[in-house]
Amino acid sequence: MGGLVERLRRGLPEGAVAVDPDVMAAYAHDMAGFCEAGEPAVVVFPETVAQVQHVLRTATELRVPVVPQGARTGLSGGANAVDGCVVLSMVRMNRIVAVDPVDRIAVVQPGVVNAELSRAAAKHGLVYPPDPSSWESCTIGGNIGTGAGGLCCVKYGVTSEYVLGLEVVLADGRLLRTGRRTAKGVAGYDLTRLLVGSEGTLGVVVEAVVALRPAPEPQLVLAAEFGSVDAAGAAVCEVMARGCTPSLMELMDATTVRAVNAMAQMGLPESTRALLLVAFDGPDRRERLAEVAEVCAGAGATEVVPAEDQAESDLLLQARRLSLPAMERMGTTMIDDVAVPRSRLADMLNGVAEIAERQRLTIGVVSHAGDGNTHPVVIFDSRDPDETGRARESFDEIMALGLELGGTVTGEHGVGLLKREWLARELGPVGLELQRQIKAVFDPLGILNPGKTF
Amino acid sequence: MGGLVERLRRGLPEGAVAVDPDVMAAYAHDMAGFCEAGEPAVVVFPETVAQVQHVLRTATELRVPVVPQGARTGLSGGANAVDGCVVLSMVRMNRIVAVDPVDRIAVVQPGVVNAELSRAAAKHGLVYPPDPSSWESCTIGGNIGTGAGGLCCVKYGVTSEYVLGLEVVLADGRLLRTGRRTAKGVAGYDLTRLLVGSEGTLGVVVEAVVALRPAPEPQLVLAAEFGSVDAAGAAVCEVMARGCTPSLMELMDATTVRAVNAMAQMGLPESTRALLLVAFDGPDRRERLAEVAEVCAGAGATEVVPAEDQAESDLLLQARRLSLPAMERMGTTMIDDVAVPRSRLADMLNGVAEIAERQRLTIGVVSHAGDGNTHPVVIFDSRDPDETGRARESFDEIMALGLELGGTVTGEHGVGLLKREWLARELGPVGLELQRQIKAVFDPLGILNPGKTF
Repeated sequence: MGGLVERLRRGLPEGAVAVDPDVMAAYAHDMAGFCEAGEPAVVVFPETVAQVQHVLRTATELRVPVVPQGARTGLSGGANAVDGCVVLSMVRMNRIVAVDPVDRIAVVQPGVVNAELSRAAAKHGLVYPPDPSSWESCTIGGNIGTGAGGLCCVKYGVTSEYVLGLEVVLADGRLLRTGRRTAKGVAGYDLTRLLVGSEGTLGVVVEAVVALRPAPEPQLVLAAEFGSVDAAGAAVCEVMARGCTPSLMELMDATTVRAVNAMAQMGLPESTRALLLVAFDGPDRRERLAEVAEVCAGAGATEVVPAEDQAESDLLLQARRLSLPAMERMGTTMIDDVAVPRSRLADMLNGVAEIAERQRLTIGVVSHAGDGNTHPVVIFDSRDPDETGRARESFDEIMALGLELGGTVTGEHGVGLLKREWLARELGPVGLELQRQIKAVFDPLGILNPGKTF
Repeated sequence: MGGLVERLRRGLPEGAVAVDPDVMAAYAHDMAGFCEAGEPAVVVFPETVAQVQHVLRTATELRVPVVPQGARTGLSGGANAVDGCVVLSMVRMNRIVAVDPVDRIAVVQPGVVNAELSRAAAKHGLVYPPDPSSWESCTIGGNIGTGAGGLCCVKYGVTSEYVLGLEVVLADGRLLRTGRRTAKGVAGYDLTRLLVGSEGTLGVVVEAVVALRPAPEPQLVLAAEFGSVDAAGAAVCEVMARGCTPSLMELMDATTVRAVNAMAQMGLPESTRALLLVAFDGPDRRERLAEVAEVCAGAGATEVVPAEDQAESDLLLQARRLSLPAMERMGTTMIDDVAVPRSRLADMLNGVAEIAERQRLTIGVVSHAGDGNTHPVVIFDSRDPDETGRARESFDEIMALGLELGGTVTGEHGVGLLKREWLARELGPVGLELQRQIKAVFDPLGILNPGKTF
């Protein structure tokens, strides 16, 4: 592969081509478990569109696979290397080109960190809503690749709602411009949204026009403890059926509550089977919070604690923020990402509890309850092959349950390597065939992130 | 073509196959001007998915073009017949299958009229926001085909934001399911949004899952009169830059104001060069309206009239609703649909005025100002070939101006027949080639709405 590296160097600056084994090992995978990673031939860090084009043209000529990467915070193996590939890290293309408060857009390079864009927008009284948990480190390019979500989605939607236009380098090095800078536009097929969530299999995003929104007022949070998952699920449904739209509605199950209690001495009663957090950020947030307090009490909440101010709100959200770290203390964790219609949320949680019991495993579930998007966290001892096997089985049973309840195998983390077989099951043969044909239109040689998604 | 009609009849009920020349003439075109329409061989009105599949299978076997149609209220010729085609009218598949207030979705057949869905949603305290002017007659299937917008988009977005999942019959009769019923989902490429706005060239929608929202409070409207387009444009920009998000922000130019005055004796001063209507529907709508009143005064409004209540608000919106009928009294009208970044709105309006003067024509402009989406209405005497020629030229010059200002040739009406050449110009060669290849994936024989979009 010496020829490859040498040819790549010809169009890239000093220090943009890494073949050091330690560097290559570090860039070989994202944060997913249960996923294999190959050995890259080289890692490149282009700084301009022309350099990305050079990398793709070289890869096309030599028929070498290319794996585009953001910050590798993904949870599905979508950024994992394949043997002999060029890892194409976009982190050095990290310029915020423009923030326009009148048109409410930002123009950004793909390596911009989500939190950096948020801070730049905040200077103009604006926000970029999609807020994955990794927002302090993940990149906008990675968010676009996976179609990332976050905590805010119940009110503000996901990445796909905020991408207006893209500049994309295709597998053969050609530059494609999609979409627009305008609020509306229906000229031709919506290639922009086809590319969002395509996990680097159709092209490499080198610039994006994203929509911003006015910053809302700080959210006020309410916590409600329930003695059963069914009661909490009923409260979630009633809140939505009444026409309330919280800015956040998160549900932690008994396992999660116990884990957080153990880690942070939060003093939540052990009898709590479900903890619901609901927030509002509109001008009527106090009235709405009072309304939800009543709904929760009516649904059988054992305790309802509405925050009086911002500081109390932040404190209540701590419990949610600690959920994953608290469970990670209990063993190796594997986080799933199944979304169901929110009317089936309680069925999903009860089903996961049944799987945990049958498989003799601990599975904690944190949910973006307002979206019906559950993250069952399977906790196991990775040194125990039998337990690891049961963990893997549980992970699959959770997806099967999600599909049975009318849901999807991935609400916001993507398919990557982890869920390829499940994608086929969800799409069915007609959809799968069309998706493969679309892939072939963009990437006839199959060099872009091969083996991912399909 | 007797063979075609006979074979179609075999899989369709009595009365679902029309060959009467009057019926065929009526179904040969939508409401666009400047567009040719061919002569259909037959018009069919299927009532079930299986019947639509029969029609498509028959057309594929016989290599006959199929033109899918909603209510033919479109403005770009996208539903116009081509010679010898099967016109596939979806109006009899008009069932609202489900409205679910917990999941906030509706499941509808494509022939459901937009206003019918709105009324069904209203019973649950919900709305389906996309509200094209033709909402009392246009169908959801047609809205999906064109990616329709409306007056609400500045706050609520367009059709594409509300389509979660589709059932689609492909050109060869296979049934494709895309998307989901859940709030979130990123499993595979977003074929749902690829299909929205594809103008019947990729498949025929036979069912859709659409998102609903809680009904907002009734909107309060403010009217502001300006002595110049620049002052009105500055007010629009300042409203958005301050972080206000109106539920409606419409701008009528001097020609439109005069036309409405002449028709309805609304008593607007002839010195008014631009009339801005701004509405809010949130719990803080009175405060926001007062804020906008100040912004308008600061930008030089000659008069600012905030409504005190619902009745006054409705009265102020009358002027906007009468705009098109008022201009239609002045001659043959041809409505354009160019969206620019809202910061360029005043440049667009001034440019259109310059075109009107140079071409010695009257062109009135109504705009969804909050979206930068202008509808210049070219008014001409269609019996005068020279004036008709200048009207056609103006229409094209308006699109060129839109592109020059960083905009798109169609904000919400679609490409159809009317703007095919302009689409190529907007997309550029790389985008156009990819779009053609995607078309070929879905419809390799090219029988679905041939000659439209491209």
